[in-house]
Amino acid sequence: MTIQERKAIPVPQVEARTPVPRQNLRVPGPTPVPPDVLEAQAAPMINHRGPEFSAIMKRVTPRLEYFFQTRSRVLTYPASGTGGQECAVVNVFSPGDHVVSIIIGNFGTRLAKIAEAYGVKVSRIEFAWGEFADPAVVEARLKELAPYKGVMMTHNETSTGVTNDIQTLAALVRRLSPDALIVVDAVSSLSSLPLEMDPWDLDVVFTGSQKGWMIPPGIMMIAASERAWQAHKTSKMPRFYWDWSSTLKQLESSWQHPTTPPVSLFYALDVALDKMLDEGREAIFARHVRAGEYVRGRAQAMGLELLAKDARYASNTVTAIRAPEGIETKALLKKLHDQDQIVLADGQDHMKGKMFRIGHLGYFTDADLQQAMDAVERHLKELGYRA
Amino acid sequence: MTIQERKAIPVPQVEARTPVPRQNLRVPGPTPVPPDVLEAQAAPMINHRGPEFSAIMKRVTPRLEYFFQTRSRVLTYPASGTGGQECAVVNVFSPGDHVVSIIIGNFGTRLAKIAEAYGVKVSRIEFAWGEFADPAVVEARLKELAPYKGVMMTHNETSTGVTNDIQTLAALVRRLSPDALIVVDAVSSLSSLPLEMDPWDLDVVFTGSQKGWMIPPGIMMIAASERAWQAHKTSKMPRFYWDWSSTLKQLESSWQHPTTPPVSLFYALDVALDKMLDEGREAIFARHVRAGEYVRGRAQAMGLELLAKDARYASNTVTAIRAPEGIETKALLKKLHDQDQIVLADGQDHMKGKMFRIGHLGYFTDADLQQAMDAVERHLKELGYRA
Repeated sequence: MTIQERKAIPVPQVEARTPVPRQNLRVPGPTPVPPDVLEAQAAPMINHRGPEFSAIMKRVTPRLEYFFQTRSRVLTYPASGTGGQECAVVNVFSPGDHVVSIIIGNFGTRLAKIAEAYGVKVSRIEFAWGEFADPAVVEARLKELAPYKGVMMTHNETSTGVTNDIQTLAALVRRLSPDALIVVDAVSSLSSLPLEMDPWDLDVVFTGSQKGWMIPPGIMMIAASERAWQAHKTSKMPRFYWDWSSTLKQLESSWQHPTTPPVSLFYALDVALDKMLDEGREAIFARHVRAGEYVRGRAQAMGLELLAKDARYASNTVTAIRAPEGIETKALLKKLHDQDQIVLADGQDHMKGKMFRIGHLGYFTDADLQQAMDAVERHLKELGYRA
Repeated sequence: MTIQERKAIPVPQVEARTPVPRQNLRVPGPTPVPPDVLEAQAAPMINHRGPEFSAIMKRVTPRLEYFFQTRSRVLTYPASGTGGQECAVVNVFSPGDHVVSIIIGNFGTRLAKIAEAYGVKVSRIEFAWGEFADPAVVEARLKELAPYKGVMMTHNETSTGVTNDIQTLAALVRRLSPDALIVVDAVSSLSSLPLEMDPWDLDVVFTGSQKGWMIPPGIMMIAASERAWQAHKTSKMPRFYWDWSSTLKQLESSWQHPTTPPVSLFYALDVALDKMLDEGREAIFARHVRAGEYVRGRAQAMGLELLAKDARYASNTVTAIRAPEGIETKALLKKLHDQDQIVLADGQDHMKGKMFRIGHLGYFTDADLQQAMDAVERHLKELGYRA
């Protein structure tokens, strides 16, 4: 470093803040947050080691467990959904373990990569983007791949708009390998789509606050079965931040966290859970079914091709649509954003620019979805698309 | 699992929310948040992959770099301060590396433990709680311990209210071992106490949003020198979530993050940085000096003993006071909390119940500190304390 570089850093000049117009945010997370949940964040800070925060955790934790459908404790971390993937891997596996990854898109690939980064030997059962994990194919491959310590799978693949049949997949894993750990990435499904951790005998399930939970990003929630807790005890992965034992210990002794939790997001979660229970778990599922059917129906009526090859496995939280021949996704998204304040998501990875995605999870109304699909139809026509 | 246990989990009954009265929150984090910063969190969600979020990062990032006093990029993660400790360790070291940990309290111990969890061979230069890291002692021990890959140190030890002389410690490490990586935990100091990353030639510096930054917990900020980035390239630690390369790549290509950032906390940070620059870096430091002097002065006038043995190294962000003989910290804190809505912190680890801590960092007024110290004086008398 030269002396010049060691000089004091001056105050930087930055561009002024410009207000964001009211948007119809239709990406698959962050999702819109109800006004009272937004407002809940603005309460003054409290001590994360005091009774007021413990009271929040005491309300939040059992209600999360209800949505997970588990009698295990749901643990919470300041993290994104990817943190949930890492937290799952480092708590139950050890370097050198053989683990099977069922992959149907970008987030499945990420989970496998994280396991590999930690020295897990990953065998992939991979399906093309748009396909679901066909249980017959999975069963045949699992038989070839045995023995394995665990099987990781994505409930709802945000990159392709496909929902796996976790109940069937979990049952077949359990039948073939009774002791295998079933790790389920439920980031963009849990609370929006049916998932029952204990009844389906799942071992690790995690999700993220910015999806179906109707709060901003920043809280990751994860639960482990008795089988996973046993695996945790002998897991030799290096870990500290993600360690379940310290988190459970602090939760059980004081309804608190071993490190500082994102307090304002817990205010939001507390209120969001009230609203979710007011609506009811089944009613939330039904609303997402209607949303998925509506968005897919509109897309198909426009002659558009869904990425999800099989309607039975099309996601009810996010719909991925192929960009029509000759139409650039970027141009469509820009028109929607600039002219209508409608925000859709591009494709990820190799599908960037070749598809667009519409989020319909968490907090939304029928009118939001209709406005978005009307605008897609109008702009596609303007861009020269003819069905 | 029995069939009984696999039955559906019913909706739990939880206690109703009770409003939290207005508190004088005087713990060393989470710290009080100014009303306009609180309110900023309540803005609607936006796409973390869109231009509106990039605009926030473009404003926030260079201003964080100004407070770090670095020309390196400051990276941000959804995490607590402990996440910063883990992020530092896993990005620059490798299993088997020999690293020196200078420890003056609980958070120094935690940093050493994290490094050990990842297979680093840690040599401790440990000082009793209340002592600062005496450069002469550190120098002698470092000479014995050479060679080492890096030296980790705490700027401000939140558990003891002691601030290390990082400039002197860093200079002596650099003189003894020019290539050693200097890792500084600045969680409860940065922005409140002078710290100059580039001018002092520090290699890794990290901090947390819930301390001097006047926003709620949930964002961890970290920066690395050119030397640390070189070490990062050859570091063999398993990592994914904390990986600097993917975070820098996304920041440089689009002013975004590789995973979903805590959007509402970035709204808050953006506004908090406006306020911090309005006040001015030097003025913030001066305000914290006055706060530290005031709180220590009041404690000493009451005949109380500070944990910090040497006034020159007493912290200006948190004061740790020994509980007087025969007085239980818990009783004092309960009276302050229940009768005056003043929230102080207990001691940590082996000092729990034997001391109390008063936070004076971030957003506070002279009146807040005076009210807290008046109440401490009154309640100690009621509890039978005579100076």
